[in-house]
Amino acid sequence: MGAAQSFRDMCDRTKNTNVRFSLPAVCVVWQTAMIILFGVFIRYDEESDPHWLEHKKLNNISSDIENDFYFRYPSFQDVHVMIFVGFGFLMTFLKRYSFGGVGFNFLIAAFGLQWALLMQGWFHSLDYTDGKIKIGIENLINADFCVAGCLIAYGALLGKVSPVQLMVLTLFGITLFAVEEYIILNLIHARDAGGSMVIHTFGAYYGLSISWMLYRPNLDQSSRLQGSVYHSDVFATIGTLFLWMFWPSFNSAITDHGDGQHRAVINTYLALASTVLTTVAMSSLFQKHGKLDMVHVQNSTLAGGVAVGTAAEFMLMPYGSLIVGFCCGVISTLGYIYISPFLEKYMKVQDTCGVHNLHAMPGVIGGIVGAITAAAASESVYGHEGLVKTFDFEGAFEKMEPTTQGGHQAGGLCVALIFGIGGGMIVGAILRLPIWGDPADDNCFDDETYWEVPEDEESIPPVLQYNNHMRNKDIADTNFSMEPYPRTRS
Amino acid sequence: MGAAQSFRDMCDRTKNTNVRFSLPAVCVVWQTAMIILFGVFIRYDEESDPHWLEHKKLNNISSDIENDFYFRYPSFQDVHVMIFVGFGFLMTFLKRYSFGGVGFNFLIAAFGLQWALLMQGWFHSLDYTDGKIKIGIENLINADFCVAGCLIAYGALLGKVSPVQLMVLTLFGITLFAVEEYIILNLIHARDAGGSMVIHTFGAYYGLSISWMLYRPNLDQSSRLQGSVYHSDVFATIGTLFLWMFWPSFNSAITDHGDGQHRAVINTYLALASTVLTTVAMSSLFQKHGKLDMVHVQNSTLAGGVAVGTAAEFMLMPYGSLIVGFCCGVISTLGYIYISPFLEKYMKVQDTCGVHNLHAMPGVIGGIVGAITAAAASESVYGHEGLVKTFDFEGAFEKMEPTTQGGHQAGGLCVALIFGIGGGMIVGAILRLPIWGDPADDNCFDDETYWEVPEDEESIPPVLQYNNHMRNKDIADTNFSMEPYPRTRS
Amino acid sequence: MGAAQSFRDMCDRTKNTNVRFSLPAVCVVWQTAMIILFGVFIRYDEESDPHWLEHKKLNNISSDIENDFYFRYPSFQDVHVMIFVGFGFLMTFLKRYSFGGVGFNFLIAAFGLQWALLMQGWFHSLDYTDGKIKIGIENLINADFCVAGCLIAYGALLGKVSPVQLMVLTLFGITLFAVEEYIILNLIHARDAGGSMVIHTFGAYYGLSISWMLYRPNLDQSSRLQGSVYHSDVFATIGTLFLWMFWPSFNSAITDHGDGQHRAVINTYLALASTVLTTVAMSSLFQKHGKLDMVHVQNSTLAGGVAVGTAAEFMLMPYGSLIVGFCCGVISTLGYIYISPFLEKYMKVQDTCGVHNLHAMPGVIGGIVGAITAAAASESVYGHEGLVKTFDFEGAFEKMEPTTQGGHQAGGLCVALIFGIGGGMIVGAILRLPIWGDPADDNCFDDETYWEVPEDEESIPPVLQYNNHMRNKDIADTNFSMEPYPRTRS
Repeated sequence: MGAAQSFRDMCDRTKNTNVRFSLPAVCVVWQTAMIILFGVFIRYDEESDPHWLEHKKLNNISSDIENDFYFRYPSFQDVHVMIFVGFGFLMTFLKRYSFGGVGFNFLIAAFGLQWALLMQGWFHSLDYTDGKIKIGIENLINADFCVAGCLIAYGALLGKVSPVQLMVLTLFGITLFAVEEYIILNLIHARDAGGSMVIHTFGAYYGLSISWMLYRPNLDQSSRLQGSVYHSDVFATIGTLFLWMFWPSFNSAITDHGDGQHRAVINTYLALASTVLTTVAMSSLFQKHGKLDMVHVQNSTLAGGVAVGTAAEFMLMPYGSLIVGFCCGVISTLGYIYISPFLEKYMKVQDTCGVHNLHAMPGVIGGIVGAITAAAASESVYGHEGLVKTFDFEGAFEKMEPTTQGGHQAGGLCVALIFGIGGGMIVGAILRLPIWGDPADDNCFDDETYWEVPEDEESIPPVLQYNNHMRNKDIADTNFSMEPYPRTRS
Repeated sequence: MGAAQSFRDMCDRTKNTNVRFSLPAVCVVWQTAMIILFGVFIRYDEESDPHWLEHKKLNNISSDIENDFYFRYPSFQDVHVMIFVGFGFLMTFLKRYSFGGVGFNFLIAAFGLQWALLMQGWFHSLDYTDGKIKIGIENLINADFCVAGCLIAYGALLGKVSPVQLMVLTLFGITLFAVEEYIILNLIHARDAGGSMVIHTFGAYYGLSISWMLYRPNLDQSSRLQGSVYHSDVFATIGTLFLWMFWPSFNSAITDHGDGQHRAVINTYLALASTVLTTVAMSSLFQKHGKLDMVHVQNSTLAGGVAVGTAAEFMLMPYGSLIVGFCCGVISTLGYIYISPFLEKYMKVQDTCGVHNLHAMPGVIGGIVGAITAAAASESVYGHEGLVKTFDFEGAFEKMEPTTQGGHQAGGLCVALIFGIGGGMIVGAILRLPIWGDPADDNCFDDETYWEVPEDEESIPPVLQYNNHMRNKDIADTNFSMEPYPRTRS
Repeated sequence: MGAAQSFRDMCDRTKNTNVRFSLPAVCVVWQTAMIILFGVFIRYDEESDPHWLEHKKLNNISSDIENDFYFRYPSFQDVHVMIFVGFGFLMTFLKRYSFGGVGFNFLIAAFGLQWALLMQGWFHSLDYTDGKIKIGIENLINADFCVAGCLIAYGALLGKVSPVQLMVLTLFGITLFAVEEYIILNLIHARDAGGSMVIHTFGAYYGLSISWMLYRPNLDQSSRLQGSVYHSDVFATIGTLFLWMFWPSFNSAITDHGDGQHRAVINTYLALASTVLTTVAMSSLFQKHGKLDMVHVQNSTLAGGVAVGTAAEFMLMPYGSLIVGFCCGVISTLGYIYISPFLEKYMKVQDTCGVHNLHAMPGVIGGIVGAITAAAASESVYGHEGLVKTFDFEGAFEKMEPTTQGGHQAGGLCVALIFGIGGGMIVGAILRLPIWGDPADDNCFDDETYWEVPEDEESIPPVLQYNNHMRNKDIADTNFSMEPYPRTRS
């Protein structure tokens, strides 16, 4: 015990994981900056301002129910659940990193959505008459979307970075996202309601590039903790299911009122159902004895939702959604079995949650499906008005043809890839600086590093447990914190 | 250890639980069939199609908010949560079958909803002008409802069947459901918005009949696993609460716009509240020392929601809902204490989750309550228009009297019982074929049979754990899978 | 073992925790009373009654979508989730009181909402033409709000009271709440949409006063159980996140249609985001080694939602919401670190969940913020119509000025404090009677007292486990219930 302890102390010396000053400093300073910037720039939009009453009369709106709030609020709350419970609990699967998974997800999402309201606001919601950003429910949804990109990136880095690094990752990630999104949606005029390209492709390659820059050759020293236990797998399933169930809301949250939201829900619902079956099939087929692997069921079942993100609002057709889901279940599961080990061994990309299989590949597929579906659009299928409304062929793009739109969609995918990979390498370089409090290789995947972890009575050997119990009675009001058994032993 | 292992191997030989080819084959072939059938039959309805813009003008619809999507989407998402998290987590209560509970629930629901869209579509949404099924949000809700019947049946069989058997159960279950539903709702003209008869009575007796056909006289060999542990009971409570909270959405999801949905929510909310109190009362009264039993709190508290399923849209009155909830809490809890052991011992019905107490009895009560409430309806209470709209006294049923409607409701209940029991016996006979990979009697309730279960560090004895830890360091990149302690020991 | 057991038996004799007759009696008698009172008083309102069709025509309502149901149902379901999963799971953090946390929360909420419908109905929804209370969706939301007050009080008492005491606490708590709410909202004409004063301040001081009356000097005898284990902390995080995510629905559920609900959501969303960052900052800064404490992340992150409860519907401005959240994260976390130990040591207030930090202080801050924001209101910011609608300056209050409104808000806060503290002391005195079956000091925080707790295989020492397993095979059909290891040992 003595030797192991002194080795561990040595590591702790070379890698100082104490974030007692850096983390509070980053949180307080950045939050203060948010308050100042919000004070200067952010105001309510006309639908969330009391002048709505006058606005309603002026615009001949007959009822409060036509406030955009009622079109989008149910979807917003579902997206909110996906961001905090969905992504958060999906990352609780590690046996001793559940606090970090759900807790740091919480922290960076709460920061990211504020910064996203500003960044996206400058690009999309700036009122040039008074220089203010006017926000309403759609801005809140977009801020949550923007945050999703950074949470995907966190998935690749889970357990290997400090909370300060995550805050930096989020600051730059949101910034890159807003620029990339503006280029893809406004300059290139690609459509991407569910964010296959803008969110998933960008977020996944951003995280994977950072992981490549932060490659840890001796990560196997933490391998005893890089796995799940029975109950942590059940916790992760909570995340999976809330993502899976609410994905129709994600892909439809900012689509057109009426048929646009309606159709996006149907397509996403079907794609996800199809993915479940092929994921189970592949998981069973490629394991000895045909046993299912929880990793696949937790992750690959979601790939269909990613891959219909772009095309969900188009006339993908119900069978088209099923086909997309079918393929993504197969590809994503095979990715976990073959591609992830390959990436780790030969490409030096350590991808804790397998975001390459869940977000990167399905995201690229989604971009391609979107391009094809857009190129194939016609007035006979959409009707004239429907075509104009669905693809927003208005203003400067009034004369645009669906085939051209298909090309623009493909262009959007390239921009997402470039921003993801390029941005990730730059931010990765920044995160390699030895000032961020990241853990040593043998401290990864361990909540002990950044959290006060409660004693875990059940894992203390019987004799110690009895003594511990007795001692607790004597020193009852001391905040006694004994390390769980396996680690005190090493 | 050697003797036990060889005995186990022998069992594995006599009962081959390897589903490596059958499960992938069923999933891939059936999913492919779905794609083909969807390609031939399924299209968007007019509210989810871009031609909605023209349809809106033609039908003088003033705003997108009158798209059926906005009336039903919040309820749909709640129902979706009930199907996947509600039913799924309710079945995680077994100490070593949480993966199977939530995972197979996921699989069969994802398959079932596709098949339900087709089966229900042929009966209810077929457009005779072009031979296509036109789907919208209401079809998605009905597909989820249809799936609920099969998930209830799974509750009776939890831990004793293979995933392939569950897929077969779902295929036939959805088919039977769609026929039964068509007879009850369209031919008999019974009303059943929350599905007391159509969903709960049918589903429960379907599952119980199958369980009776698959009776295992030596199931006590798995008794060490047929129980909960502390944390698995807390997981199951997640399922209970999401079912309980969202049941008002379940019972109101497809009722009439306006007062119909409003009233169904109030009735269900009240019935469920009342059930909680009588469940707690009975649980405490019938246990020594007055201690509460988690099984009752997890299940019987939901009985009130089942029992107002039919009558929730009627003028059941708030106190009527409370009375129904009161009775069902009592009956369901007494069912767990007295009827379930009786059924198992004398009727050879092994009902893992107690669906007889949670769905069968309350479902039948719900059918009876519905018949009485319908028979008692009058123009003085409903108003003329209200009566016509609530009971759909239109077309061929224009001259129908409430008393006659009451009789039709009772007829509907009988049809549900006949389809449940009869269908279950036929499907049970099919599932007895020795080709489905079901577990041996001493392998029931054990995730090891069909899942790669992670090592559970906490249950390995200290010495082994230490060695294991050391070995892991050496063989770090091997996908090392050690069985949890209790089972390696046997 | 013998001596410890006989000591424990002695305690059980002095403190009889057997609620086998009192709990069922209270549940059945009170539920019966509810049925009778509902029969006499409660009816559907005009929007949930079939006469809605005629009402709609009379009032020129163009579409069913303008039924209040569609404005409020999504928020209602979110609030419902907060009450049952949010509050329930937040109280599962104790290592051996998860059943009691979530289960008793379920029981008293189910009773409380029925009693609240009556009490609030008499004050707010009584139709004087026929003496009936007419209920609709807004009444269900208000009933859930009313229940929240009692659940907050339960948080202070968690683990130290019997279910019968909790029922009594709820009966009186709901009654006091309804009176206090009537005085604050109707007589004083204060606004409090999110209930900073009415719900949080009242509920917290009600619970803290009861806890003070029930002070247990020897509670340290249960200290071994007054803490969390790893997985119970993850369970509690489920509660935290559902509260956090759905708080925008809580604060907007009963605000004005249109801009009122829209603005309340934006303000709450922002305040909560800001709170997360300062909570993390303070938690890290005040712990040695900068490690985060799960207690703070689970609780203090919610303080911002409490503190914008009153002002969320006002023109608090986005940056104002961030400032409120910023301050509350700091204050609440410092409360856990410094004030809670002080209260316990010097004020004899034992506050299990720290409701003083999560509800009491932020609630008072919320009342003050509301008063200031109201006093600062002006027609230039709200517009004339907006000012009238937001502050309900109609009828007797037509000529009221915003500055006067500010004074009334402050008056409302005082009433909430008086009712909380005064009511709590009276109810606390009642709960000190030795007839309620509360646990002895060394049985607190232990589910064994009121629940049948399953054996926990994982915590039995290896040798016993093996024997136990063998024995289980022999006595398979016995309902074998062995106490988890640590307790059988003592």
